Amino acid sequence: MPRTSMETAIKEQEQEKETVKQHLQKVIDLLDKLQLEESLVHKQHMPRHELIESLLHKRYQVKLKHMLEQMRPADIAYILEALPLDRRLMVWDLVKAEHEGQILLGVSDAVRETLISDMEPDQLLSAAEQLETDEIADLAPDLPREVMQDLLESLNEPRRQRLESVLSYDEESVGALMDFGMVTIREDLSLKAVLRYLRRLKKLPEHTDKLFVIDRDHRLKGVLPLQSLLLNSPKQRAADIMETDVISFKVDDEAMEAALAFERYDLVSAPVVDAEKKLVGRICVDVIMDFIRQDSEEEILNQAGLEEEEDLSSSIWKSARNRWMWLMINIITAFVATRVISLFEGTIVHIIALASLMPLVAAIGGNTGNQTGILIVRALALGHVTSANLSRMFYKEFGIGLLNGVVWGSIIGAIVYLIYQDVGLGIVMAAAMFLTLVVAALMGIGIPVIRHKFGLDPAVGISVLITFLTDGMGFFIFLGLATVFLL
Amino acid sequence: MPRTSMETAIKEQEQEKETVKQHLQKVIDLLDKLQLEESLVHKQHMPRHELIESLLHKRYQVKLKHMLEQMRPADIAYILEALPLDRRLMVWDLVKAEHEGQILLGVSDAVRETLISDMEPDQLLSAAEQLETDEIADLAPDLPREVMQDLLESLNEPRRQRLESVLSYDEESVGALMDFGMVTIREDLSLKAVLRYLRRLKKLPEHTDKLFVIDRDHRLKGVLPLQSLLLNSPKQRAADIMETDVISFKVDDEAMEAALAFERYDLVSAPVVDAEKKLVGRICVDVIMDFIRQDSEEEILNQAGLEEEEDLSSSIWKSARNRWMWLMINIITAFVATRVISLFEGTIVHIIALASLMPLVAAIGGNTGNQTGILIVRALALGHVTSANLSRMFYKEFGIGLLNGVVWGSIIGAIVYLIYQDVGLGIVMAAAMFLTLVVAALMGIGIPVIRHKFGLDPAVGISVLITFLTDGMGFFIFLGLATVFLL
Repeated sequence: MPRTSMETAIKEQEQEKETVKQHLQKVIDLLDKLQLEESLVHKQHMPRHELIESLLHKRYQVKLKHMLEQMRPADIAYILEALPLDRRLMVWDLVKAEHEGQILLGVSDAVRETLISDMEPDQLLSAAEQLETDEIADLAPDLPREVMQDLLESLNEPRRQRLESVLSYDEESVGALMDFGMVTIREDLSLKAVLRYLRRLKKLPEHTDKLFVIDRDHRLKGVLPLQSLLLNSPKQRAADIMETDVISFKVDDEAMEAALAFERYDLVSAPVVDAEKKLVGRICVDVIMDFIRQDSEEEILNQAGLEEEEDLSSSIWKSARNRWMWLMINIITAFVATRVISLFEGTIVHIIALASLMPLVAAIGGNTGNQTGILIVRALALGHVTSANLSRMFYKEFGIGLLNGVVWGSIIGAIVYLIYQDVGLGIVMAAAMFLTLVVAALMGIGIPVIRHKFGLDPAVGISVLITFLTDGMGFFIFLGLATVFLL
Repeated sequence: MPRTSMETAIKEQEQEKETVKQHLQKVIDLLDKLQLEESLVHKQHMPRHELIESLLHKRYQVKLKHMLEQMRPADIAYILEALPLDRRLMVWDLVKAEHEGQILLGVSDAVRETLISDMEPDQLLSAAEQLETDEIADLAPDLPREVMQDLLESLNEPRRQRLESVLSYDEESVGALMDFGMVTIREDLSLKAVLRYLRRLKKLPEHTDKLFVIDRDHRLKGVLPLQSLLLNSPKQRAADIMETDVISFKVDDEAMEAALAFERYDLVSAPVVDAEKKLVGRICVDVIMDFIRQDSEEEILNQAGLEEEEDLSSSIWKSARNRWMWLMINIITAFVATRVISLFEGTIVHIIALASLMPLVAAIGGNTGNQTGILIVRALALGHVTSANLSRMFYKEFGIGLLNGVVWGSIIGAIVYLIYQDVGLGIVMAAAMFLTLVVAALMGIGIPVIRHKFGLDPAVGISVLITFLTDGMGFFIFLGLATVFLL
């Protein structure tokens, strides 16, 4: 490429690079123009088919189509994600067929659903056929049954077997995350032969930072980083320069374990082996990154009482249902707490200040209980909890509960005394705060540890459960103490 | 390496690989033995220096030291993380000096602090000197001032300048995450010359998946993936086969933007340029992964009202302080809500059922407000909120609020009627639930959007703020309606 044209190329690409967000704005502008026109035509009572034929309309559509053709599939996925449903489908219809598969992979679950429900079975089938086996597996849960059946029939035997095996692994296991894009070589080859072999492949799979060295039985012997291929003499044998201290995973290892290992050892790709140490696939950092992101998003959404990621433009009805499960649990648990209060209605009538103060006890108990709970859940997830330091953790959290109880109990007790000028009420408040904070600390550590012991995910619903118990206990302790000592 | 010894090597490494967690258990066992012995000696009233000399003690210590020498720095970091403070420092003293720098980088902030406070300035200085410039920058905030000064003096001029420049970037910018381990080549070189150059380097920096092609003025021209070096004829020129459609970042780009781009385009490394497009560094996937993890952890911790990640073994006093800021905010906001209730004490005395029911209204308002808030915060963070779809989002959330209000308001109103056999109370409850849910939806969308408009991070403290407002409003609406219609 001559110098000047190359510079122009770089400049163009520079401009393009700036504009994933600007692209989104341009797409929206074009869609606005298309829609404005449509409404104008409507006002003039032109029949709809004329509108579609209208030259102006076509011009914008062609412009949009051209723009989309220039863009990377990942960028189109981003734009589809940000558009409301009607406009998203307009853009989706203009996307090149050969990019459809990659785009479906790139969008979130919620958006993928809307795109797939807009596609004909034939179109879906051909989109899926463009993909690698492991990518098809990622799409599989969203594909209609009959498309999946046709797809399985259209694959050749080895690919079908692979697809079926990937689909059979647990969603949270390494097997479900692996792909088959590994380049394998035999240990007795010289580097020269390896290089010749690679040149024949023409292109290496993405994220190939190392080749996997196997023996006659397909057992993993070591790995050969691309750099050692480059840095060593072509005369050397693969077996002599390969690394044998390999971090590998088994198909049924937990995906979270693999993610932690990728972070710990800064891996780009790693081999996956079966029970007999035979190489069956590899796992790459991009998939791990998606896994980490998804896992922490789930945690964030669950904490807020949401079932799943929500497409901003999904219907009110669908979004409402997404939020109902936790909302319902919340209502039920809050109802139970109201029953605890109603036990003490007689006391409250006599000392009406209790009605104002009781939500304070519950709120603070819930807050500290959740703080402890989240820390324990995180320690369990990161594997920092061993039997040896479990009791240590317990004493520590208990100690914090005591300390918080003494400090905040006294402060709040004093404030209550100042407001109501009632020594008894201040003391009851202080005592209730103290007891509630200690109980909250015990709940915060006990609930996740017990769930973990019984093999349940300690994170799921943790804050609803803790809040429920601390609310109920807080009301009971405060109103109970008041009944005993103040009546 | 002859075949059999290689197989043994692989077997050994297999065993080693299995055992990051088993290692931890072994270390704990050895520490137990050390401590058991110490307590025995204490009971026999032997002087402490004899204990230290005791042969048995030494044997376990040697064993432990040997074990640590065999382990990867990342694994030692994991073990230090899981140990309580006293044992952690015992292990830390046995770690090889040359690994100290890497281990300090590998542990969490909280654990790093405990290790650094156990080190002499000299020891710290030599640990830091083992590291790359960008790695020193990661440690810098935790190093004592005088160590940092000595360190800056001990570095040569170009490294010092680099370190100072990295330290000057905003923590959330690409500049703070970049490293300088890029391999650069000039565009007019042949691949043969490039290969010769690489062999002279002997070793490429980690995560080198591509070389950066620059011109005479150090301006980025393109990138040359290692694979195209392998797959093309050595006679070709770099300029002819390099990729010019490069995704690059500027030093002052937001780190979150870069993280999203790494996920979108599945990158391993990417060049970082300054305002004049001169290459200044690169950014790698391992750092991006850490950034994503840290960012989502902060979000999870903040949602639970925690300031920062807590070391499980940090002191009760330190942990308590970590939790106090949010706890205090929570107490203040809850106190304000109690003042709203106290305005209506006269009403509550007359209709005591209100005391039991009012926490229900507040809890459910808080729950739905937080659901909406978290979704909006996430949409803002992912860049899905454009001015075009802001009003759309608004109407949607408002619609969900209305729907939830009608559905759950009626259900709860009906239940309240059944429990208290009071039509008026049931209707007031239903109306209060309806209004509170609508208000909660408005808060959930309004607060993050307004914070975002004013350039504030919409995520910080979102749930405390929303809960505060929904609690106060919920109490006010419910008790207010009761006062007007039931008294």
